[in-house]
Amino acid sequence: MQDENRSGQMSNPDRRRFLATTLSIGAAAGLHSLAATAADNRPRRAGSRSVMGMAAPPLDTVGVGLIGVGERGTGFVHHFCNIEGARVTAICDTDKVVIDRAAAMVSECGAPEPALFTGDDFAYRGMLGWDGVDIVVISTPWRWHATMAVEAMESGKHAFVEVPAVTTVEEAWQLVDTSERTRMHCMMLENVCYGRDELMVLNMVRQGLFGELLHGEAAYIHELRWQMKQIDRKTGSWRTPWQTRRNGNLYPTHGLGPIAQYMDINRGDRFDYMTSMSSPALGRAAYARREFPEDHPRNRLDYITGDINTSLIKTVRGRTIMVQYDTTTPRPYSRHNLIQGTNGVFAGFPNRIALESGGGETFHEWDHDMAKWRGRYDHPLWARMGRRAVEQGGHGGMDYLMCWRLVDCLRNGQPLDQDVYDAAAWSVISPISADSVADRGNSKPIPDFTRGAWRTAEPLGIVGGRN
Amino acid sequence: MQDENRSGQMSNPDRRRFLATTLSIGAAAGLHSLAATAADNRPRRAGSRSVMGMAAPPLDTVGVGLIGVGERGTGFVHHFCNIEGARVTAICDTDKVVIDRAAAMVSECGAPEPALFTGDDFAYRGMLGWDGVDIVVISTPWRWHATMAVEAMESGKHAFVEVPAVTTVEEAWQLVDTSERTRMHCMMLENVCYGRDELMVLNMVRQGLFGELLHGEAAYIHELRWQMKQIDRKTGSWRTPWQTRRNGNLYPTHGLGPIAQYMDINRGDRFDYMTSMSSPALGRAAYARREFPEDHPRNRLDYITGDINTSLIKTVRGRTIMVQYDTTTPRPYSRHNLIQGTNGVFAGFPNRIALESGGGETFHEWDHDMAKWRGRYDHPLWARMGRRAVEQGGHGGMDYLMCWRLVDCLRNGQPLDQDVYDAAAWSVISPISADSVADRGNSKPIPDFTRGAWRTAEPLGIVGGRN
Repeated sequence: MQDENRSGQMSNPDRRRFLATTLSIGAAAGLHSLAATAADNRPRRAGSRSVMGMAAPPLDTVGVGLIGVGERGTGFVHHFCNIEGARVTAICDTDKVVIDRAAAMVSECGAPEPALFTGDDFAYRGMLGWDGVDIVVISTPWRWHATMAVEAMESGKHAFVEVPAVTTVEEAWQLVDTSERTRMHCMMLENVCYGRDELMVLNMVRQGLFGELLHGEAAYIHELRWQMKQIDRKTGSWRTPWQTRRNGNLYPTHGLGPIAQYMDINRGDRFDYMTSMSSPALGRAAYARREFPEDHPRNRLDYITGDINTSLIKTVRGRTIMVQYDTTTPRPYSRHNLIQGTNGVFAGFPNRIALESGGGETFHEWDHDMAKWRGRYDHPLWARMGRRAVEQGGHGGMDYLMCWRLVDCLRNGQPLDQDVYDAAAWSVISPISADSVADRGNSKPIPDFTRGAWRTAEPLGIVGGRN
Repeated sequence: MQDENRSGQMSNPDRRRFLATTLSIGAAAGLHSLAATAADNRPRRAGSRSVMGMAAPPLDTVGVGLIGVGERGTGFVHHFCNIEGARVTAICDTDKVVIDRAAAMVSECGAPEPALFTGDDFAYRGMLGWDGVDIVVISTPWRWHATMAVEAMESGKHAFVEVPAVTTVEEAWQLVDTSERTRMHCMMLENVCYGRDELMVLNMVRQGLFGELLHGEAAYIHELRWQMKQIDRKTGSWRTPWQTRRNGNLYPTHGLGPIAQYMDINRGDRFDYMTSMSSPALGRAAYARREFPEDHPRNRLDYITGDINTSLIKTVRGRTIMVQYDTTTPRPYSRHNLIQGTNGVFAGFPNRIALESGGGETFHEWDHDMAKWRGRYDHPLWARMGRRAVEQGGHGGMDYLMCWRLVDCLRNGQPLDQDVYDAAAWSVISPISADSVADRGNSKPIPDFTRGAWRTAEPLGIVGGRN
């Protein structure tokens, strides 16, 4: 394994602008808490070292083993079957119906029959002990994510884990410690980072279109009460109990991932502290009363997750991020993304832009013409792969593009776009939000999982733009 | 003076629904901090008593004295000249140009010439000592608001004060103490509470269309850097220095007022605690560098107000409110209002509604057809007065309607729609936000200016709907 700088991902002028930006923001914010960050660090384990910017030796073909091929994992089987250089070699699930369905999908693509691992909850360990697998894609219930990712890395396989990667701060450190010790990748599969407009905005941010970044907004507003009707199988069977366990933001990363990449979180800036408040928790119990018999188990749960959670994050460089979570109230879907800089703003749902200079229009009116903006600033990855991504599908192509990109990085020995520090920092917003909610919204520190490496790390470049 | 309950403002079924709502929300929230509220109270001064629901003896005609007839006060002169039963009897300003202009406006309406008070900063005291004035309308720089309102009440005149009514928590208590001692009204002129859709939504909230309220959002996003070019006169001359004095939300009430009325703040619920974060402060200095010579005074100021401030408020009944302030970044205007209940949501900019039941549509799509909603739920005050209000103008009619309504209440001996407790609670979001920003976003208690009266106060009814 080699540690490589992410050279070539940002040109020198870009780098200079980045430094100018962060230095002036730092000056404005008085670098108020740089001194305080060391206290949040945990010492690195003996024999370990940072995986910031780490690249693994190139793989000729990528043998993909999937743990969990239910609603989410099935999509990954489809995508990896359709990516050059990837081979689905192994599938694990406890459910015979879905594992057979996934195996049939592989065969239909003309690929060799994958090895199947099934039986009890720990059947995945058989896959981890098998050498036909290079990477493990984990699409299981949340409580398994960290355990399986840690064990995958310990088995010498790269871990690719669905969101959220972890559910506690302790699990986050376990991921970081394991990646640093084993030198294996651990990437969270935050697909929204690969959306067309999300990547276009990253491109625009790197070109300075929004000026110096000030504030972001991110949400997961997605009415999912209907999942409560999934009693024994599918997502609702295990997600519903989470609504009885934690009062906070249960699912922060879809909105937050792109904002964190825009802001160079863990690569020039980092999350410093956060605060959180939850609304009353009324909707789940009311839905259960309406939709289930009085003596149904869904009517015997104590739903404690506030229907809407709103959190604020402060970065060390002084920027702010508002993050919301609401899977309960009747309301149109929204990830409500927004990035505001000194020169203008992008906002989502519906997507729109207003710039002071460089936009050709007044910033007093929103410009909704995304086709025009894509014509100017479409991301190179979409320009190159977008047609195929849309054909392959998966949330409009973002899923395929994420899978294609990680295979491309692994085959070319490139660092990945999201690393274990991102998985940790983005995911711990959930447990820390609950801590703040329980303490009258007082602010809570967010650990520096990079142990200081964020100060000197190269920012994420225009991912895939120069491959 | 009489203390009257706000009888007749809410029918019994409405009242019963309100009680059911608040009790169930209270149960869900575990009434977590009812016990803690007493600590925030200040003892009432000897000889004083609550002005909750207070009505003053009816006035046959309302003699209006205005302090400050600049950009904002001039509009009030126009409105009060065009309201039956109101007479502009006195005008005070230190600026000869604007006082003459205002006096001419009165004469043009065919009214007797008003008494003019001018000279030094304390010329208003001459007006306060004169018995031709029943109410004093204060449209002066922020630092004068509380002082003038207190002195007006002490002179036996009702005080009507522009937003924000106070700039510190201490000033807020002074307003409350003075109103309770003198038995004079003190109303903040929060005009947005009289917007057509804002009042329609109040009507819908009272009819239960949104279910039990959970969460609100309110903002003042209004690019006003250009006011920095007002050096010696006009709003920018005194507002600009505020950007060097306080890092927080300088102007919270336009978005917050309607949300507070929907949520029965101070009349069944109240603000409990809040947290706040500010983005870096970059935009004002950059604007000064771009627009002024290097040695210009605007380039010698230290702008500390974060370009975007985001605050979260928690109510005792457990609801949450997000409040934003941004007068600096290049971005389209928005008050970003939103009210979310268990049955659906209203959001602003653009105005749109989604309801689970009672809307005839799916809640998965926004309904932007406000004409349709107004057809069903237009507020009685707008149905009655809207045409005249729009003719008279002032932010689309809301200013005229506010003035008309307060005159109507005074002439009929009715309580006002906003009282001194509202003025205090809505305005102190500014200083308390600054306290939180300066303390890493830790939460800060919001005083109970009602000294417990919020628990039993009748909620604000459908204002003006039954006159």
